[in-house]
Amino acid sequence: MADLFRLSASEAAARIREGKLTSEALVRSCLERIHSRESQVKAWVHLDRDFAVAQARECDKSTTRGPIHGVPFAAKDIMDTADLPTEYGSPIYKGNRPAADAACVALSRAAGGVLLGKTVTTEFASRSPLGNTTTSGSAAAVGDSMVPLAFGTQTVGSVIRPAAFCGCVGYKPSFGEVSTQGVKQNTASFDTVGLFARAVEDLALFRAAVTGFAAKPVAAIPVNELKIGFCRTMFWDRAEEYTKTFLEEAARALAKAGAKVADVDLGKPFENFEAIGRRINDYEFCRALTWERNHHWNLLSEFQRDKLTGWLNGSYEQYREAEAVLDQCRGHLADTMKDIDLLLTPSALGEAPAGLASTGDTSFNILSTWTYTPCVTLPVFTGPTGLPVGIQLIGHRNQDHRLLERAQAVYRVFSKPT
Amino acid sequence: MADLFRLSASEAAARIREGKLTSEALVRSCLERIHSRESQVKAWVHLDRDFAVAQARECDKSTTRGPIHGVPFAAKDIMDTADLPTEYGSPIYKGNRPAADAACVALSRAAGGVLLGKTVTTEFASRSPLGNTTTSGSAAAVGDSMVPLAFGTQTVGSVIRPAAFCGCVGYKPSFGEVSTQGVKQNTASFDTVGLFARAVEDLALFRAAVTGFAAKPVAAIPVNELKIGFCRTMFWDRAEEYTKTFLEEAARALAKAGAKVADVDLGKPFENFEAIGRRINDYEFCRALTWERNHHWNLLSEFQRDKLTGWLNGSYEQYREAEAVLDQCRGHLADTMKDIDLLLTPSALGEAPAGLASTGDTSFNILSTWTYTPCVTLPVFTGPTGLPVGIQLIGHRNQDHRLLERAQAVYRVFSKPT
Repeated sequence: MADLFRLSASEAAARIREGKLTSEALVRSCLERIHSRESQVKAWVHLDRDFAVAQARECDKSTTRGPIHGVPFAAKDIMDTADLPTEYGSPIYKGNRPAADAACVALSRAAGGVLLGKTVTTEFASRSPLGNTTTSGSAAAVGDSMVPLAFGTQTVGSVIRPAAFCGCVGYKPSFGEVSTQGVKQNTASFDTVGLFARAVEDLALFRAAVTGFAAKPVAAIPVNELKIGFCRTMFWDRAEEYTKTFLEEAARALAKAGAKVADVDLGKPFENFEAIGRRINDYEFCRALTWERNHHWNLLSEFQRDKLTGWLNGSYEQYREAEAVLDQCRGHLADTMKDIDLLLTPSALGEAPAGLASTGDTSFNILSTWTYTPCVTLPVFTGPTGLPVGIQLIGHRNQDHRLLERAQAVYRVFSKPT
Repeated sequence: MADLFRLSASEAAARIREGKLTSEALVRSCLERIHSRESQVKAWVHLDRDFAVAQARECDKSTTRGPIHGVPFAAKDIMDTADLPTEYGSPIYKGNRPAADAACVALSRAAGGVLLGKTVTTEFASRSPLGNTTTSGSAAAVGDSMVPLAFGTQTVGSVIRPAAFCGCVGYKPSFGEVSTQGVKQNTASFDTVGLFARAVEDLALFRAAVTGFAAKPVAAIPVNELKIGFCRTMFWDRAEEYTKTFLEEAARALAKAGAKVADVDLGKPFENFEAIGRRINDYEFCRALTWERNHHWNLLSEFQRDKLTGWLNGSYEQYREAEAVLDQCRGHLADTMKDIDLLLTPSALGEAPAGLASTGDTSFNILSTWTYTPCVTLPVFTGPTGLPVGIQLIGHRNQDHRLLERAQAVYRVFSKPT
């Protein structure tokens, strides 16, 4: 029983449902794992062992509440929790205790999930290069088998990129798929609650829990039914050489396994995509942080202060124009994917960057985030220094379950016994 | 000086800027007005006179901070405020004091506004027929000259309808125009922060404050340049006979004044618009209220409990289908309005309903809210029992300033000395 913490969420949920495992034993195993590893991993900001065990015992006493009954999960500390502090990665909110749980946390608990603790976030879930021990506590915690499920948020690339760096399976849903009630806004037009796990079927289970609808089985799709577009995007040149090699290799492997693989070019409408999206990001982030800017300037990092200075350099018209361009891009991508199930593209430039100076480059994440399409990263490769390198699969907007089924089919191609 | 509370926001801001009026005198006048009228109007839930006066004095000591410097405003109690309680119209949040101001409140204060107090909201800003003294405190407060500016929220019809009932000028912006950070979610896909005032130029001023960009003058558009579509919508039969007569009269008056007025039919794409939108409303509202459902069932009203029971009767696919249909409607409306500046349509069925059993019918409000287009209501007519009846003008999505300018031109046609 020493390795209960390694169980996938689906396996753990099944065992608990069948009376072969208690939630308490599982939660205690995860807590021990955290105890032994946290000094190195530094994934958590708030842990309350007694609270976690109390929830587990309640689950063990009650009938099955939902798809993740008895299974522990972690919430990124950008999400409100009534029972644990919520500090948004900022000293401004030291000891802050919201009145209610964020909807995604409440839905997970309503589905039987056990809130294990809160994981590290950068300051307001934005690009703050300094002052954090870990840039995504959720990815690190799941990757290190401290917890089988965790929430993240992606405004630019903060689910897929850290998931790839930490060897997790990560899922950034379609925009609006998971409620953002109680999640501190970064950029309202882009903020998307995402999920970390160690298996694709766990993502489907967790997704069912947080949407509230019944869990649907992940159908086995034969690989030879897949139509895959290999999309280098406009940022291919930024990727590490080994990443390019891996992605070419992945495309060949999928074709060899029977999938239809063709190159896809995004073309002209995406030429200024990055600058256009940044314009929206900059304006909405600064707007949302007005209270902090006016009342706690000295408690903001240098990085945020720079961002918040001169935030109105553009005009309102430029902001709305940027939205219109992104909307055209969304339509263009839908057209491009008409006869394609999935786009295959890198999850990040390469392995995780060394040190804490950078959270990594987000070039390969904006396509999916800002077009509102769902995506998954799968930990398929190992980079030159032995760290994980993921592949990213982008599906059709609002067809998330379909994406997860197809991602599962792709994953099987690479998960053959080695 | 006894009638300072009747000043429009623009006039008050100009006088304060020119040193002819102090914010303190204005705020004290509003507080006196509230003192003498509140027992009848019942618009406020939280007032802190000392806090209001202290803010005013600060304004009087400082240089002009922004377009509404020294001008008092009210926030609907669905919006977080760090300095005043925030109860969302629910006993669950009795005495709740959030850590920060909602972004719209913070932006108003950053622009020099004085937060006068919090106004009545229905339970979670939803249709709760019981237990509230006033269904929209903000509209009542502005209509009764207690405060020149106030925030509301519109998910279905909660800005335009109460504004029309209370004889205010009301403005429901394009979706996303005003930040929703710190506003308790009702239906994330529809929630829109709206503004109440007593003059169209005040809306423009307040809009500048909450978007952060510099205030732009409201250009005088000649009426004969206006191209107006008279849109009876699919709900014309629900309107009171006098409302129909008033609207026909308004269309004739505008044509007589030189505007180009033509009938506009929304046609087939809008056939199931109401049911489709309600599906999204029901799902997202219940999802956002999960914490309250699970932890405070007994403190929810009967109405909410009914709504929260069986909220997952539909499927995820039906929810996303509904979104796709609304998206088509948005495109169809944009096509319909290609050669039109404004749609003219009723603001409500008729006068405010008597008593507290109903907040009024929202049939004429969903077109604009759910298509994300901005709209304004103007208090142009007086109904058979002497209460105000408004006309609604709907503009092009994300062209809100343009709408305000054109609404001003329309208003002038009806504001001739009588």
